[in-house]
Amino acid sequence: MSVTEALVTRNVTYSAEVLSRGGLAAKGTQKVAVVACMDSRLDVFAALGLTPGEAHVIRNAGGLVTEDTIRSLAISQRLMGTEEIILIHHTGCGMLSFTDDELCSALEAETGARPAWAPGSFTDLADSVRQSIARIKASPFIPRTDAVRGFVLNLATGRLEEVDTVEA
Amino acid sequence: MSVTEALVTRNVTYSAEVLSRGGLAAKGTQKVAVVACMDSRLDVFAALGLTPGEAHVIRNAGGLVTEDTIRSLAISQRLMGTEEIILIHHTGCGMLSFTDDELCSALEAETGARPAWAPGSFTDLADSVRQSIARIKASPFIPRTDAVRGFVLNLATGRLEEVDTVEA
Repeated sequence: MSVTEALVTRNVTYSAEVLSRGGLAAKGTQKVAVVACMDSRLDVFAALGLTPGEAHVIRNAGGLVTEDTIRSLAISQRLMGTEEIILIHHTGCGMLSFTDDELCSALEAETGARPAWAPGSFTDLADSVRQSIARIKASPFIPRTDAVRGFVLNLATGRLEEVDTVEA
Repeated sequence: MSVTEALVTRNVTYSAEVLSRGGLAAKGTQKVAVVACMDSRLDVFAALGLTPGEAHVIRNAGGLVTEDTIRSLAISQRLMGTEEIILIHHTGCGMLSFTDDELCSALEAETGARPAWAPGSFTDLADSVRQSIARIKASPFIPRTDAVRGFVLNLATGRLEEVDTVEA
């Protein structure tokens, strides 16, 4: 059985539970958008104690603020009213384990094409969080940038450690 | 108290639980990557019965396959060994409630600038899923495209309904 098939089977149990509480249709307060890494060990709902309806969750390789993250955040704030942003990187991130040039060269060798996108690898978690915060603040399309905070989730403890963003 | 502060407080409870099970550092099988909408009602871990270490989770406004999604999927498959992809859109998606031109014109009127990105609104959930699957299959950078399946999560029931992708 494929993993996908196994997960679809688990969804039947979830569905029974959702039906017992009358569905998920009601939106909550939705005042915050979370931008986090796609890492398989990071359960954003669990780590923040979220309940359905509370927060938009945007995730990608690294938890970076890319152009697509700006698109999602612009929609989140302008059309759906969120006001705060939480960025989450984490210890042991795969993005620390290669360089952009290594991946691009491997892709080019295998496919004959070099990607138009930068892979986004980084060498320092806190610096990457600070760069992502700077990208949000630099975008004209994100109206609320006064409540943007960045964290590194320590996988050994599950604890969110805030990144110091005070400028030197 | 800001919502962010409340969520950081809830993280303390999560951390105690993570510590009691020895941390999150162990990676699991990681054979699947999930691409889902950022919607606040969608708890991907719960909906698929995921445990930490099982699946990469990529999320954005709409659950679309954008260039940044291709970046994340390429890293997921080539560097971290995932082989299957699950796409999840959902009923009542906000992306059905506006047009790209409406949002771009509003942004331009307010900021003086028109975004370089397309907002990605759509009018049909199944069509959008099919378009996202087609983008994955068209990318030279995603090596495994034989196990890509698309679903619409019904928010009334919590049930994943598979999108028919058989070509006409």
